[in-house]
Amino acid sequence: MIYFDNCATTRTDDDIAALITKYQTETFFNPSARSSFSAEVSRNISVAREKVSRAFGAQNYAVYFTSGGTESNNTAILGSLKSKKGNIVATAAEHSSVYNVLLYLQSKGYEVRLAKVLPDGHIDTDDFLSRVDENTLLACFMHVNNETGAVNDVAGINAAVKEINPRAVTFSDGIQAVGKIPVNLADSVDLYTLSGHKLHAGKGIGALFVKNGVHINALLLGGGQEKGLRSGTEYAGGIMALGEACQRAVQNVDKNTENFLHYKQLIRQELNCRYVELCKENCSPAIMTVAFEKLKGEVLLHMLEEWDIVVGTGSACSSKNKQSRLAAAIGLPTAFSEGVLRLSFSKYNTAEQARLLGEKLFRCVLRLQKTMGV
Amino acid sequence: MIYFDNCATTRTDDDIAALITKYQTETFFNPSARSSFSAEVSRNISVAREKVSRAFGAQNYAVYFTSGGTESNNTAILGSLKSKKGNIVATAAEHSSVYNVLLYLQSKGYEVRLAKVLPDGHIDTDDFLSRVDENTLLACFMHVNNETGAVNDVAGINAAVKEINPRAVTFSDGIQAVGKIPVNLADSVDLYTLSGHKLHAGKGIGALFVKNGVHINALLLGGGQEKGLRSGTEYAGGIMALGEACQRAVQNVDKNTENFLHYKQLIRQELNCRYVELCKENCSPAIMTVAFEKLKGEVLLHMLEEWDIVVGTGSACSSKNKQSRLAAAIGLPTAFSEGVLRLSFSKYNTAEQARLLGEKLFRCVLRLQKTMGV
Repeated sequence: MIYFDNCATTRTDDDIAALITKYQTETFFNPSARSSFSAEVSRNISVAREKVSRAFGAQNYAVYFTSGGTESNNTAILGSLKSKKGNIVATAAEHSSVYNVLLYLQSKGYEVRLAKVLPDGHIDTDDFLSRVDENTLLACFMHVNNETGAVNDVAGINAAVKEINPRAVTFSDGIQAVGKIPVNLADSVDLYTLSGHKLHAGKGIGALFVKNGVHINALLLGGGQEKGLRSGTEYAGGIMALGEACQRAVQNVDKNTENFLHYKQLIRQELNCRYVELCKENCSPAIMTVAFEKLKGEVLLHMLEEWDIVVGTGSACSSKNKQSRLAAAIGLPTAFSEGVLRLSFSKYNTAEQARLLGEKLFRCVLRLQKTMGV
Repeated sequence: MIYFDNCATTRTDDDIAALITKYQTETFFNPSARSSFSAEVSRNISVAREKVSRAFGAQNYAVYFTSGGTESNNTAILGSLKSKKGNIVATAAEHSSVYNVLLYLQSKGYEVRLAKVLPDGHIDTDDFLSRVDENTLLACFMHVNNETGAVNDVAGINAAVKEINPRAVTFSDGIQAVGKIPVNLADSVDLYTLSGHKLHAGKGIGALFVKNGVHINALLLGGGQEKGLRSGTEYAGGIMALGEACQRAVQNVDKNTENFLHYKQLIRQELNCRYVELCKENCSPAIMTVAFEKLKGEVLLHMLEEWDIVVGTGSACSSKNKQSRLAAAIGLPTAFSEGVLRLSFSKYNTAEQARLLGEKLFRCVLRLQKTMGV
């Protein structure tokens, strides 16, 4: 099986899966209990937290562990709002775990202002900033667009928002960025999120970065774990996995970038037909989203499965919706909007796999064009 | 190491840990993506859901997977409230993942009525029911008290609440019940919860049962997984683990009960000193909570560690608080309130371990009494 849907999820590294097992079957103690065995697990959680922090230059942030990207994004948004008096500025291209929270807030009386997105998925920064004002409570701008791979200038947008309104809380969903492109939070955005299963750490674990001085409320209440921000028995195995995976991802990012850019070239060389690549400038090396005129991406996806090649059609998290919200947001012509395939890479891919993907995809496109008479 | 803190958390079965690993490293596909590999994971999630449902006689319920007991309890409570016009009835002995949500709701203007608890931790049913009226929105009554082991009559209390107010939503936290005592939801309480790591399924996974016809709102919004009730990429490995562990727990419950009752006897035989057993009648076989006059439970806990014996002092989830809320709720005399030890059993314990625990605990008590001069 050749797997090119690494934006949907990634394979957990074998030794990281073994680490999770160790914390479930050997040192399985509840980190909040009082024995010295528990205290040791608790100390190791601190070490993992430090690894996550260091991996992304987050010395000025507190790192909280959550059950994943969705919980991190929900907590960032819901936890940061203390008043209904004001507006929220975001983009129409945000992931559903941000976008649907904004729709909910709108239904509760918040004013939500959605900024335009450029045709390649980048945030239209001018439009975004024009919507920020002294009443802005929260500004949301994703780091890497999960469907096109467009990389936004988080530090730049953050600085511009703060210049207009220093009290506005800034939040960037970093789920498709971490481990794929260099991320250095330094002291930019107030809130930042990541998901473990997007970077080989396994499902059920994520993190939320909260800049020092920024206060947010908890979403889950209970035993007061994670300094009260996220109650619930710590998923220690997942936390250890995340610490290790973040460290590893950062060590590999340059080599991966070089490989992934090469894979894109190989695919382009094989794909000797008419298509558009949704984002070509300032795009994540790990994502290559292509659209074929008058063809259905989902049909191509299943045709590729005949060769045991797995690709995506867009966000797995909105895959059960018929129409891509992004296609509308970026103004993708109708002729192309159903023919989208998202090819996304990980360290487990090889150049030969990429070449094969290009070759087989080309064949599928030709076959489907013939069948469809286009 | 001899482990008697199975209410805090349990050791994950080796083959269940291997199942988690399989769904992270082999069939690691995102269940919501479109490939046939993903579709297969999605089907297996349905099978696991069916296993959980069948294990607890929940044919009349929808089963939703969450990140654990805390999220399940938070969702049950917060998701079921649609109006501030009314009261919530609960007990003072609820677990912190229920109790602290109630305190939060109180701060938001809800009327929260806390019913009395009997000295052994059972709900004072008369007092509880006297607080339920036609304006009750939600009635919360835990199934098994996590600190004393007292087993409450969920079906009976549910029926009595419904008789007073058929529109009141009823919720029972089943986290210390499932896998420890026979649980048959049939068509009793509206909402019921469980936690995976309390029954050998590992951390980071839990479930929420919602009776057919009862509607609750989602806490986490996003991609619409779990029929919209719980967005976020499904932790497929944890879900498979939970399905298997629930099935297994139910198969073993009779044999475990017999063993655990025997362990209690063995401990009592060895413990040839003055102590009180907090709950003796209608108590979970898996929990034996004892209190020693004028001694500190935490000191005894650490003394037992010298023999590599691990016990608990009460709820791990409130273990960082100095004073037990329960001790106050059940009116435990001050002389005993700091001397509480919770001994809790699992299938991995043996009679010899129980005897050894009793013997060593007796020795520790004598030594500590001497040191303290009591």
